[in-house]
Amino acid sequence: MAQMTVVSPNEQVALKFWLSDKGRPMYSMTYKDKPVINPSGLGLELAKDKHASAGENETDLMEDFRIVDQQFSDFDETWRPVWGETSTIRNHYNEMAVTLERADERPMYYGGGGGRPGVGLEMQERRMIIRFRVYDDGIGLRYEFPQQPHLNYFLIKEEHTEFAMTGDHIAWWLPGDYDTQEQVTQQTRLSEIRSRFRQAVNWGNSSVAVFSETGVQTALQMKTDDGLYINIHEAACLDYATMHLELVDAQTKSLSTQLGGGSNAYTPNPKPSPYPLPKPFTFVSHLTPDATGLKGAMQTPCHTPWRTVMVSDDARDMLSSNLILNLNEPCALDDTSWIHPVKYCGVWWEMIVGKSSWNYTDEFPSIHLDNIDWSKAKPNGRHAANNDKVKRYIDFAAKNGLDEVLVEGWNVGWEDWANMWKRDVFDFVTPYPDFDIKMLNEYAHSKGVKILMHHETSSSTQNYERHIKEAFELMNHYGYDAVKTGYVGDIIPRGDHHYSQSMNNHYLYVIKEAAKHHIMVNSHEATRPTGLCRTYPNLVGGESARGTEYEAFGGSNPDHTCILPFTRLQGGPMDYTPGIFETKLSNWSNNTSWARITIAGSLALYLTMYSPLQMAADLPENYEKYDDAFQFIRDVAVDWDDSRYLEAEPGDYITVARKAKGTNNWFIGGKCDENGHQSTIKLDFLDKGRKYECTIYADAKDAHYETNPQAYTITKRTVKKGDTLKLTEAPGGGFAVSIMVK
Amino acid sequence: MAQMTVVSPNEQVALKFWLSDKGRPMYSMTYKDKPVINPSGLGLELAKDKHASAGENETDLMEDFRIVDQQFSDFDETWRPVWGETSTIRNHYNEMAVTLERADERPMYYGGGGGRPGVGLEMQERRMIIRFRVYDDGIGLRYEFPQQPHLNYFLIKEEHTEFAMTGDHIAWWLPGDYDTQEQVTQQTRLSEIRSRFRQAVNWGNSSVAVFSETGVQTALQMKTDDGLYINIHEAACLDYATMHLELVDAQTKSLSTQLGGGSNAYTPNPKPSPYPLPKPFTFVSHLTPDATGLKGAMQTPCHTPWRTVMVSDDARDMLSSNLILNLNEPCALDDTSWIHPVKYCGVWWEMIVGKSSWNYTDEFPSIHLDNIDWSKAKPNGRHAANNDKVKRYIDFAAKNGLDEVLVEGWNVGWEDWANMWKRDVFDFVTPYPDFDIKMLNEYAHSKGVKILMHHETSSSTQNYERHIKEAFELMNHYGYDAVKTGYVGDIIPRGDHHYSQSMNNHYLYVIKEAAKHHIMVNSHEATRPTGLCRTYPNLVGGESARGTEYEAFGGSNPDHTCILPFTRLQGGPMDYTPGIFETKLSNWSNNTSWARITIAGSLALYLTMYSPLQMAADLPENYEKYDDAFQFIRDVAVDWDDSRYLEAEPGDYITVARKAKGTNNWFIGGKCDENGHQSTIKLDFLDKGRKYECTIYADAKDAHYETNPQAYTITKRTVKKGDTLKLTEAPGGGFAVSIMVK
Repeated sequence: MAQMTVVSPNEQVALKFWLSDKGRPMYSMTYKDKPVINPSGLGLELAKDKHASAGENETDLMEDFRIVDQQFSDFDETWRPVWGETSTIRNHYNEMAVTLERADERPMYYGGGGGRPGVGLEMQERRMIIRFRVYDDGIGLRYEFPQQPHLNYFLIKEEHTEFAMTGDHIAWWLPGDYDTQEQVTQQTRLSEIRSRFRQAVNWGNSSVAVFSETGVQTALQMKTDDGLYINIHEAACLDYATMHLELVDAQTKSLSTQLGGGSNAYTPNPKPSPYPLPKPFTFVSHLTPDATGLKGAMQTPCHTPWRTVMVSDDARDMLSSNLILNLNEPCALDDTSWIHPVKYCGVWWEMIVGKSSWNYTDEFPSIHLDNIDWSKAKPNGRHAANNDKVKRYIDFAAKNGLDEVLVEGWNVGWEDWANMWKRDVFDFVTPYPDFDIKMLNEYAHSKGVKILMHHETSSSTQNYERHIKEAFELMNHYGYDAVKTGYVGDIIPRGDHHYSQSMNNHYLYVIKEAAKHHIMVNSHEATRPTGLCRTYPNLVGGESARGTEYEAFGGSNPDHTCILPFTRLQGGPMDYTPGIFETKLSNWSNNTSWARITIAGSLALYLTMYSPLQMAADLPENYEKYDDAFQFIRDVAVDWDDSRYLEAEPGDYITVARKAKGTNNWFIGGKCDENGHQSTIKLDFLDKGRKYECTIYADAKDAHYETNPQAYTITKRTVKKGDTLKLTEAPGGGFAVSIMVK
Repeated sequence: MAQMTVVSPNEQVALKFWLSDKGRPMYSMTYKDKPVINPSGLGLELAKDKHASAGENETDLMEDFRIVDQQFSDFDETWRPVWGETSTIRNHYNEMAVTLERADERPMYYGGGGGRPGVGLEMQERRMIIRFRVYDDGIGLRYEFPQQPHLNYFLIKEEHTEFAMTGDHIAWWLPGDYDTQEQVTQQTRLSEIRSRFRQAVNWGNSSVAVFSETGVQTALQMKTDDGLYINIHEAACLDYATMHLELVDAQTKSLSTQLGGGSNAYTPNPKPSPYPLPKPFTFVSHLTPDATGLKGAMQTPCHTPWRTVMVSDDARDMLSSNLILNLNEPCALDDTSWIHPVKYCGVWWEMIVGKSSWNYTDEFPSIHLDNIDWSKAKPNGRHAANNDKVKRYIDFAAKNGLDEVLVEGWNVGWEDWANMWKRDVFDFVTPYPDFDIKMLNEYAHSKGVKILMHHETSSSTQNYERHIKEAFELMNHYGYDAVKTGYVGDIIPRGDHHYSQSMNNHYLYVIKEAAKHHIMVNSHEATRPTGLCRTYPNLVGGESARGTEYEAFGGSNPDHTCILPFTRLQGGPMDYTPGIFETKLSNWSNNTSWARITIAGSLALYLTMYSPLQMAADLPENYEKYDDAFQFIRDVAVDWDDSRYLEAEPGDYITVARKAKGTNNWFIGGKCDENGHQSTIKLDFLDKGRKYECTIYADAKDAHYETNPQAYTITKRTVKKGDTLKLTEAPGGGFAVSIMVK
């Protein structure tokens, strides 16, 4: 069987494509001649539409293909992100596009615009293009469906993109789940996923929906025994279901099948896939279903997201790669002048910790928004989003050069907002009586600060879409320019999932509507990002992982932040909300959780967890106790001209130096796991001949994330290009360095 | 067991309530001491919420009740509808409200606003009120759930309201279906429903979703062997699933159970109901499920719709009853001055018949709205909604005193609008290039005519809600004041059904948003109405049954229009679109269907099918051929001060006299089935001493719906109170009479 090969510009990455004996599209991939992906199948299994005539099954796009065209091309372009880790990004790849065709006897629709088509049978050719882009640090592949006479609409039962691993690699994985990724990353061999699976699920999360004991999420970071780092993810997931990976292991009998829903929207097919199981250690794509069990409804011309495999023998390349961004489309917004990086604090942590409440009253057993006279409701005395407190936060932001103040719990409806299947849960425009929206915004603006809007949807997306225009108009009226959205709980309409095609369309709808109103979006509990922030740079942040809030819900492991940049952050920045200084929450609340990090480690996160939106998450009074350390948060930039990953190993340590946008100042952060770390940093990236004032925020000798987290040292010295910094990170600690032009 | 009884004001209808030995609420009903409803159970089966602790099932609201309170009251009020069959309506009933309570060991939720509640167990009392209203012509009953500590949110697995029939009645029924009621009414004994069921389903309809071989729809008209007419329906269905009825017959093993959906939104329970089956000839309520199989998500305080049983020994009382309207809430709109009856014609029938098209072009295999330059698209030459044709219709309307002109196919997207699972199918604001929206509205307004807007949603409700505000703003801008909405095809979000709780909420959302814009709504393919037009009188019409369009899809039976007033019209007016004069469609098109009605019969429908919105559905050129008959359509009123049902028998004949609003003119219509009918009409409702010019449009002697439909006579005479008209209706025919003050 003839193979077609395309290699990366530096020839280190090579990709082969061919058709199997059965006419199934196949590919494999190497890096420096080492196999990365063994021969793996491609294709899509289609669902039968109920509108097809009885007994006529839709035919899959899996086998029986012939190659009718192949196109090779190369591309080399440097583009400038609106914000980012570097001021320019090079997009350099070689491309191969293979046009495949198969002929089938299939139902013929006719009848035109009347909506009552008749059906017959005829031989039909259908074409699909598989496009490969090969970069020096990995590949992207996607399926494209040109507009054509016999492929206009189709329903996806499952996508069968395979990633055959070459061995029993170490993987950093999350349980595959249709609704949440707020879980603890597991580090195991591939062969250990099944036995670890059940304990890996955070069953207490309000939206757990797992589908297989070997199902995992992307971005999936792996490491091979011969030192290759491999990362599987996707790019540009637009109006398509989010992809999970299901591992075929020695015990796999068949792939997980999503049964049909209770409706007759399509013919349920509980039978397993008719295609042979791939070999063990192969990952197979598993898309997120809608309420009927269907994975997607497509109309040509269209294409899937890019399926990506990043590879290197240097872990730092996993972090500096721009492959995901490069596979997204250029900026779709004509005017981006209103988009800016944001450093912010917020009325938030004290509610997360449980010291105060989002809700205003405890008076009512439940809330019908239309029936409450809020001015007469009895305050519970714990409502945080009140005028006095918000003004205090505004004062704090203004004093410390923070751009915005997030205020959660400002709007009515928090009394029974979550997990009640309430559709009409919030209206997004009515403040509680103790939140004077006009006065507070004017007060903030008078001090050069903005309030950051909060729209918790409670996952009632229908309700949010009904109110979104008025909500954004309110924001425009009062001068808000950014919104944090939230999707806690189960999706309404019921049966849908956070990562389905329809929900991915919803998130994009919100981003586009926000852009029309010049509003930046920071989306929590939404689908994991796939680089859409290139196309829509008003998507300045997101959560979609286990954030700092879990430090108040039992805590996260010290290595958590040394994994996220390899996994969650591949798709875009995370609003991790770092900066907890008072790590023992019982010092100021009844919460017995504690953050597994030192203060120096917390400072490091502003560098190692790249985001143009960075929160100083702790309370103002906690920062005031450690004001000398807080100086770093005041100083640190949130947008960059350059970034250099100096050290990295997944789950162990990450060290990065970044050059602040439009300046010659550098900031360096190093973060390590529970074992501590020694860093030796050669300052060879500084300008030659220039002197810098260097301030080092380091763990004290006896610092430890559990026993002594607040032990830090601050030292200043003058440095120049070529100097070396030797820094010791405590267990669960880190360091932060500012290097300012003198 | 103690029974409580409440009787109607005239004491003809009596209702008994008691608790069974197991504590289940029970009722029965009599009319003139004859049993109408045998002892029947009440109650709701609840679904377990996934947020309850594992193993803890939600407890049903079915048995183990005790009576804690009972309240009796009476009510007598006369109200004035904004439009209607009579200028005033008397709402006169006796009421009984029984408060029931049961105690259960149930999960206790705590944790407040944080969304992550903990769970324990405690004894909890829950209360439910069953409210009965007893009228002289029937009863209404509903379940009410007051706000209370231990019943704030609940999920309905099924409502078990029983209606135990007293024998094997004749019924006029449609197959119970979650998505369509555009079917041919079946007339059978109850015992024959099962054997007739499969042939009763119109499997060719695009949205068939039946659930049981003894499932039927409401309003269900029945007749007993001892001459009672019984009608079961519901009133005021707001944010609750539409009710079907499942008949327990001799072969019933268990009630139909809706399995859980593919998601884990709630715990699916494929087990049949644990409650004993009622006796044969009992109907049990069966609610329309959502995509997960769930029947409803409730938050107290709340209540179900009214379940209604109308009864009389005179069929005419079934038609003149205002029980459904009376059980709805009073008008919710402050200002109704903008609401008015509408007589209209439209660019519609020629597309239904297939002579012209909704779509503008046949050029593209499929349409992405954003990607088409419509000005360059190649016209198909069959697009009806073009400037010339619309102007012709406007001229016709102006000349003949019609208020509005419906134009379908005016907006882009009709090329592939139905059954393709397209979410973004229409934008509701972009006209085709040959429809000059500004010019045409100005032209219409200059002639005293309005254009009637058309919003076909293709059942993509998410898309419609996203565009609805701009769509209504466009209507306001150009001076439209009414919209015909359409819901052809399967609901998007996929898995939902036309008659589910969420869809019923959607229709109401549209009505309310329309009212904000002073827009009247005529909703096609929506849920069957339950009298909401009292509360929202801008809901001036609806389809929700097999309308005139089916005369072009194979035809309806001649008795069809003698059944609909007993069934579909119980809930509100129907936009039946009568007035087909050229009944043989092949006379002017390639369509071989033909309308099973005479011209005189068509005229009668303007009286017998009450609606404040009446279409003259045929083509202007067809009307011009029979202009003397068309005079009746010019003359007939569409709003009334009084209505007298003179003759009625379901499926056989209906004769009604109506007094035009604000005048002393009367109009009489008589419509019969395929057997013809002789009417003797005593004009005792005319004013004493007044002379009237009477014009009689009658079937000619040899008229017949099949062989000679266009044979009619027009005679004029002077009449006065007490005169008698003897009129002969041909098979499939009827008559129309105008009686105008001289």
